Amino acid sequence: MGEFELIARYFNRPARRSPLGVGDDCALLQPAAGMQLAVSTDMLVEGRHFLPTVDPFRLGHKALAVNLSDLAACGARPLAFTLSIALPLADEAWLDAFSRGLYALADANECDLVGGDTTRGPLNICITVFGEVPQGEALLRSGARAGDDVWASGTLGDARLALEAFRGTVRLSGDAFAAARERMEAPTPRVALGIALRGIATAAIDVSDGLVGDFSHLLRRSRVGARIELAAAAKLLGASREAVGEEERRIELALSGGDDYELAFTAPPSARADVQGAGERAGTRVTRIGSIEAEPGLTFVDAAGRVVPRHFESFDHFAA
Amino acid sequence: MGEFELIARYFNRPARRSPLGVGDDCALLQPAAGMQLAVSTDMLVEGRHFLPTVDPFRLGHKALAVNLSDLAACGARPLAFTLSIALPLADEAWLDAFSRGLYALADANECDLVGGDTTRGPLNICITVFGEVPQGEALLRSGARAGDDVWASGTLGDARLALEAFRGTVRLSGDAFAAARERMEAPTPRVALGIALRGIATAAIDVSDGLVGDFSHLLRRSRVGARIELAAAAKLLGASREAVGEEERRIELALSGGDDYELAFTAPPSARADVQGAGERAGTRVTRIGSIEAEPGLTFVDAAGRVVPRHFESFDHFAA
Repeated sequence: MGEFELIARYFNRPARRSPLGVGDDCALLQPAAGMQLAVSTDMLVEGRHFLPTVDPFRLGHKALAVNLSDLAACGARPLAFTLSIALPLADEAWLDAFSRGLYALADANECDLVGGDTTRGPLNICITVFGEVPQGEALLRSGARAGDDVWASGTLGDARLALEAFRGTVRLSGDAFAAARERMEAPTPRVALGIALRGIATAAIDVSDGLVGDFSHLLRRSRVGARIELAAAAKLLGASREAVGEEERRIELALSGGDDYELAFTAPPSARADVQGAGERAGTRVTRIGSIEAEPGLTFVDAAGRVVPRHFESFDHFAA
Repeated sequence: MGEFELIARYFNRPARRSPLGVGDDCALLQPAAGMQLAVSTDMLVEGRHFLPTVDPFRLGHKALAVNLSDLAACGARPLAFTLSIALPLADEAWLDAFSRGLYALADANECDLVGGDTTRGPLNICITVFGEVPQGEALLRSGARAGDDVWASGTLGDARLALEAFRGTVRLSGDAFAAARERMEAPTPRVALGIALRGIATAAIDVSDGLVGDFSHLLRRSRVGARIELAAAAKLLGASREAVGEEERRIELALSGGDDYELAFTAPPSARADVQGAGERAGTRVTRIGSIEAEPGLTFVDAAGRVVPRHFESFDHFAA
């Protein structure tokens, strides 16, 4: 199977929402009047972002999911994406499953594959996504204000828990492992929530390298600080709530786990009912976990409001 | 140096032509009224698309150049790009030179780096470019009509000649090697020519895998064939004209060399003066090398118009 047959067989379907899709030098996109185009890109490397043993259907899903999660954090509606992929060889069974996983999530988000590149090399998947957002309504990292509430969507910590189980540092029951592994390998991007939060949230970011680390980026861009209630954050735990005995370790999983693809966001206290309503419309749980403060930095407090000295590591691909 | 410091130091400059650049979950692009957004992506893998010994400044240039070449083939004006890069380690001297090469070409094309991703892994560079083209004016592969002339820009064959010199299959003088290597490592995307050909060319494609192979894609999309004059094609040779003795081998270099990043395009005979004028405005030589025929397929003819049986291989990353 040659390069062009590979593309024709697995990665070429008619674009439904774009003037021109796969098969020319460029794809053509046409945002509707008054819309801005939100763009994000993520590269996934075997052994770093996924295990060599991963089901290729799930890998196709995840490669697109992590990109859609960035659109979600901006409140953008998915429109299209490009896929560049380096493959050590053209394995038909692998390509069939990978492309099915990719298209299943693309179809669920009405998002067209409009172009890409295929080459031989160590397995590497680079997707660039495009979404539409009304001009001036994109959720940015820079909009948090002192007094805002801090919120997080869904559950946190399970993807990291699954990774630790693969590494052998924790032992899980079959059910807990299956639930955690599902969260690691098939995360659900919070696209509907991001769109529902337009006009409500003041700032948002997607949680991919751990809540504390990612939220710190939002704080720096907004030039504010935050106080996180550890007891509230503990409510964010998923399967890890039952699976990990030690309270400290559970909270660490929730706050610095990574690979969660949830949204962390801020909104004024006057918008609490609106935030809850947005979560309900999107079918995604939202949990209030703290508040924004004028003073930069991130502090953690116990149920009585006392500051608890804690330090959480964020994931860094080039950390020493 | 951590991941975020690496981005801040080498890959974060203010966007001048986009509402939002590096540093949020998404970049925001706003095509002007009446404009479509042309999108293309290319992935470069060490050992396949470039040699491990390449000067990183030139690699930065080339990684963007091969993408801009796709915009050129659509007649789109560059606007922005994203960069995803997997690096085996964060080598400051390498990153400094790579980013300078990248920005030099970006600046020459008034094109902003608006986002990206940085990870550790086998060296892999994935760029996605965005350009603007007035609605309905993009040059497509599908517009060639029987009777059109076939044209190519610049010179062909030198990049492949340099590769063969590196491989030791040809011996070149110092000057010929330097000229050929410059074409292999620092190709000039024909952006100005692509824009100048709007409304003149009926179809266009960029030549990256060899003229014959790439032009065959254009023919298939246009459902036509072509007759190429070997003597005219021989005029496309660059340094290889002097450096390679055998006529057959020289023509093979021009027609199937690869890595040229020139444009092949079609236009009606009535537009010959317009095509020449577009080449002059863009400062790029244009050469007429054949004509489009209704019958599918590609044939080669000698100076007397007699069909010459020839077969040229095109580059295929997954060919057996």
